[in-house]
Amino acid sequence: MANVKVPKLPTIRRLPTYLYKLSEMRKAGVEIVATPELARYMNLGEIVIRKDLALTGVSGQPGVGYKVRELIEAIKSYLNWDNVSEAILVGAGSLGSALMGYEGFEEYGLRIIAAFDADPAKIGTEVRERSVFDIDRLEELTRRLQVRMGIICVPADQAQDVADRMVAGGIKAIWNFANVSLKVPDDVIVQREVIAGGLAVLSVKMSRKLVEEDSQE
Amino acid sequence: MANVKVPKLPTIRRLPTYLYKLSEMRKAGVEIVATPELARYMNLGEIVIRKDLALTGVSGQPGVGYKVRELIEAIKSYLNWDNVSEAILVGAGSLGSALMGYEGFEEYGLRIIAAFDADPAKIGTEVRERSVFDIDRLEELTRRLQVRMGIICVPADQAQDVADRMVAGGIKAIWNFANVSLKVPDDVIVQREVIAGGLAVLSVKMSRKLVEEDSQE
Repeated sequence: MANVKVPKLPTIRRLPTYLYKLSEMRKAGVEIVATPELARYMNLGEIVIRKDLALTGVSGQPGVGYKVRELIEAIKSYLNWDNVSEAILVGAGSLGSALMGYEGFEEYGLRIIAAFDADPAKIGTEVRERSVFDIDRLEELTRRLQVRMGIICVPADQAQDVADRMVAGGIKAIWNFANVSLKVPDDVIVQREVIAGGLAVLSVKMSRKLVEEDSQE
Repeated sequence: MANVKVPKLPTIRRLPTYLYKLSEMRKAGVEIVATPELARYMNLGEIVIRKDLALTGVSGQPGVGYKVRELIEAIKSYLNWDNVSEAILVGAGSLGSALMGYEGFEEYGLRIIAAFDADPAKIGTEVRERSVFDIDRLEELTRRLQVRMGIICVPADQAQDVADRMVAGGIKAIWNFANVSLKVPDDVIVQREVIAGGLAVLSVKMSRKLVEEDSQE
């Protein structure tokens, strides 16, 4: 199962970027987009573009392209972003605040409805128009609000405790920004966000480029 | 070229996670790690683990495992993280502040040495122990400091202007957190960080799980 998922992972990661570009086009009144244009935008080959988009079940018309509106709907449907998911966020620090301020999430069907923190200076305040509650109320409020998704933005050494409270409150999907691997029951999904993953890609691109430059000398 | 890179992208993204786990093990005095243990930690199959690590040029000893210290060095060398890269960051808001506070970067060879912002209330202050300079000084200071890497944390509509200033200041690698595609000269590398990429993966995992649950009924 894990082996089956791997090849699609980059495609899934790229889908929001397609979605962003296609939404821009729709706003500009564009109805059809050709594969070469998407390839230039994504900085990928046309074969990769076609494979990526085939995952959503939509196929372009040869020599013409994809219908923008149809493709948007197919991507949103594949990602289940045509339904709104409500989430709570724990850790109202700078990262938590950045995520709550991220403009794209509403379009992607994610609504962060409340934040939790352990810091008395933050409890009772509002961050990005969300109330910050005492973390001791996490389990109770999550259960009452019937929220299924939780976002962890606390330091690594507090993340497991937060995850345990989330699970106790009925959370079934955790988006984990803490730099630690979480232990959760089998029926809970964790997506760990390793910010340094992008830095690794950039570093490899840079060192390869340096090699290329060297070999030209 | 683009097609060659794609299959390795998930591997490269995963390398920091291996590195994190291996560093923890080294701190705990562990000298050898077996493939099954890494497979459990990464939630991947053993074949994927072996393929991932083969990219760094290190092969495990059959029936024994990998030497922790050797593997750490190989990963760091592959990512060029054994050398320190200095970077400047533009946009000292919540995301910029979160990145400057990220503990892992120093270990990954990234040192953010200064921040820039257009907000008079921020200019001249310190954020996470870095001075915040007027964005109008970006080109001059970047050139003087001989920094090659820039991190963009400004809103999408300001990102292209910031990128242009970075390029004018001699920046050759841009880590772009703004939700926009940047136009840069061919000799400048851009790594666009789409935070919603992880959300897409989580969403697909969630909807697949729901399907699996449904089919059990």
